[in-house]
Amino acid sequence: MAVIKEFAYELGKKIRCVEEIAAGYSKEEIQQMHKIGLQKIPTDNERMLQEMIQDVCKQITQRPDCILIAHSLPFICREGQQMQLCWSNVPTYYLSGMPCAIMHKAIEMASILVEKELYHSILVIGADKAYSDQERIFFGTIMGDGVVALLLEKGTGIHQILSSYVNTTILASDGENSSAQDIAAFRQVNTSFMRRAMEKCLEKAGLEKVDYYVTHTSNKEFWNSVSVLTKIPREIFLDSNIQNTGHMNSHDSFYHYFYWCEKDVILPGQTAMLINPGFGGSQGCTLLRR
Amino acid sequence: MAVIKEFAYELGKKIRCVEEIAAGYSKEEIQQMHKIGLQKIPTDNERMLQEMIQDVCKQITQRPDCILIAHSLPFICREGQQMQLCWSNVPTYYLSGMPCAIMHKAIEMASILVEKELYHSILVIGADKAYSDQERIFFGTIMGDGVVALLLEKGTGIHQILSSYVNTTILASDGENSSAQDIAAFRQVNTSFMRRAMEKCLEKAGLEKVDYYVTHTSNKEFWNSVSVLTKIPREIFLDSNIQNTGHMNSHDSFYHYFYWCEKDVILPGQTAMLINPGFGGSQGCTLLRR
Repeated sequence: MAVIKEFAYELGKKIRCVEEIAAGYSKEEIQQMHKIGLQKIPTDNERMLQEMIQDVCKQITQRPDCILIAHSLPFICREGQQMQLCWSNVPTYYLSGMPCAIMHKAIEMASILVEKELYHSILVIGADKAYSDQERIFFGTIMGDGVVALLLEKGTGIHQILSSYVNTTILASDGENSSAQDIAAFRQVNTSFMRRAMEKCLEKAGLEKVDYYVTHTSNKEFWNSVSVLTKIPREIFLDSNIQNTGHMNSHDSFYHYFYWCEKDVILPGQTAMLINPGFGGSQGCTLLRR
Repeated sequence: MAVIKEFAYELGKKIRCVEEIAAGYSKEEIQQMHKIGLQKIPTDNERMLQEMIQDVCKQITQRPDCILIAHSLPFICREGQQMQLCWSNVPTYYLSGMPCAIMHKAIEMASILVEKELYHSILVIGADKAYSDQERIFFGTIMGDGVVALLLEKGTGIHQILSSYVNTTILASDGENSSAQDIAAFRQVNTSFMRRAMEKCLEKAGLEKVDYYVTHTSNKEFWNSVSVLTKIPREIFLDSNIQNTGHMNSHDSFYHYFYWCEKDVILPGQTAMLINPGFGGSQGCTLLRR
């Protein structure tokens, strides 16, 4: 079994409000943004993602044997440049694809690699940021800048990775540019696809239920629908921290998991499934036991 | 054990000569390009890499359960777009990092995933292309456009993957923009690092020697040095097909392996180690048995 031995994060340093970022939007659109849970967004349009990753790595005390960086947006760096981290000569790979769910695939792959002892420890980094307010707003939600790092090792202990499940059934393949028809088709099945992925992940761990679901934070209203469909009490979907982060692509649920552990909402021994539906038709789930 | 069940490729359709691509270069520089083995380069500045991948996939008869695309250069596609292939809903991931060696990591990861039966079959695609003659020429060599696809499954049969070894010891981290001092330091140890990686890959397979080395084709002269250093006969380094492909980043050795199998240079039952040194300090090796 793999466990998360260390955790670190770095968010955008400028905490800005919806009204400021969405300055060009109508009053109704801004109201809707508040309604889906947005309040304060950690941003930093000027800072390079690379610097945020460098700073996160400095917080990790143990040198990893491998680094796997999951990103949903194109990774912007200088041509041909390899990142200089606080450790030298650690093989570093970048994994992308599956917007808003890719971090789950990275965790699943890293778990297998440490369990198979190909590496003793792998640092899985989820990293995405925007470089302008314009690109920060999409699908009526606002993206916050954030990097999370999880050091995985084989073993037992706290933050055990009990199972992973990642599904892909693409119905809208061009993001915001998909046809209205494809987007409608996707939205119609998005909650039921999410339900199926949650069930599969539970099944893989041999569990019947979990204590909490820690959700992707793009839109609180989506989780109302999932709660209705799954008949899982709305209060065990932990999504309210969207007010402090905004939408953080694929790694937000990992950030929020540690937030809720630190607040002792998720208690030692309890289980939480981290769930990210990705736009277009992918779902990523990771089941952890604190 | 994993085997390569199907293989397909697509090269740039315009076969051009060194003199034409390097039109702005001096006579001496062009002579040097010939000396390292370059003659004809398959190019297609206008075509998108995505189209080449789509065409390669059409040649694969079996629908894979997962697609892993290894690329050294940034993968250029329209914002937020997911690739439409001949199969729908196959989860598709992109793996990068480690210029000129990343394909070996993708093969290693895919082998583990099929052996562990996380997927029945994985299509590993190596894909890199240039979009202008200017970006095609670097480090005194010329890049050809190519995509290769290998369908991996668990099992026995031909094209068995006996072992993989990927090492990273970065001495020059900024590609062509690295300092002259770093580049010199890297060049000084590049052959001995390559030797060590070759030894490690042999050791992992429990073999003492292989029948052939199928090499990365950036520069034939490099393999003269490696042959001297390793005391391995120069003639078992199969690198002469550089004359038809130019430098094809991380997946060239896989393309050449199948080229030499088709020519019956590599015979059934023989072993070949595919070896790619990546600029800066990474080495990828994959040992196959035909």
